[in-house]
Amino acid sequence: MLETVNEMHYELRVVGIVESPLVDVAAAPAQGDEDGSDAWIAMGAQYLPAMRDLVVGERVIVLTWLDRGDREVLAVHPRGDPTRPRQGVFSTRSPDRPNPIGLHEVEILAIDGTRLHVRNLEAISGTPVLDVKPVLGPIGSR
Amino acid sequence: MLETVNEMHYELRVVGIVESPLVDVAAAPAQGDEDGSDAWIAMGAQYLPAMRDLVVGERVIVLTWLDRGDREVLAVHPRGDPTRPRQGVFSTRSPDRPNPIGLHEVEILAIDGTRLHVRNLEAISGTPVLDVKPVLGPIGSR
Repeated sequence: MLETVNEMHYELRVVGIVESPLVDVAAAPAQGDEDGSDAWIAMGAQYLPAMRDLVVGERVIVLTWLDRGDREVLAVHPRGDPTRPRQGVFSTRSPDRPNPIGLHEVEILAIDGTRLHVRNLEAISGTPVLDVKPVLGPIGSR
Repeated sequence: MLETVNEMHYELRVVGIVESPLVDVAAAPAQGDEDGSDAWIAMGAQYLPAMRDLVVGERVIVLTWLDRGDREVLAVHPRGDPTRPRQGVFSTRSPDRPNPIGLHEVEILAIDGTRLHVRNLEAISGTPVLDVKPVLGPIGSR
């Protein structure tokens, strides 16, 4: 079955863009709970029907495409610290990986049409957004 | 900035494939903690260096591409239940969404070369795998 992998082609759709005071990838925190910035996500107008049940105060998972990531890298020094031994990227949250998809759990602070204001997003301004998903509650509440 | 969205093109790399007793999408559970099945993930041989620090017993997040999802759908009846009002897909975990990326938090049960055995994965057999990430511990442990 694995032999068919190279014949699979899937193209992402960018559904929104991060607008943030964070503009310098070198200065961005590794994770949003480490001094991430409040940021806006500008969603494409065509995705308004997909957003219509989002609620201020809700926690959601924002998926981004970390487009500065190096897709050829398979092992990194964790957190860019050269004194730490190199680790396989599947054991790290490094943006350098075959598919640089970022996961960001954030709180929605405000909603203005197709724009979402969220707390503590570590992605830099201009980062493409791929998806927004609810954080799962207990089984009975889904 | 949003005007440039339609000019962005990103292609995914399939890094592995799910091998599972679950073969029927209609019978698959909505989430892995609702009777998901133990499953194998067969990773491409070229990704062995990225896997080398994965450990049996560890919890990881597996990202999949839910290739049966309908990418044109923006609102769905939650959990496919027609008695529940339609919701925007960004408020659901439906596989029908612009980018049908699945998030699965699982425990690694065994590692055999480039094959990972994991507990409670709800994706059906043949589902492409995009990434494996560690579940983040407390800030000091990263």
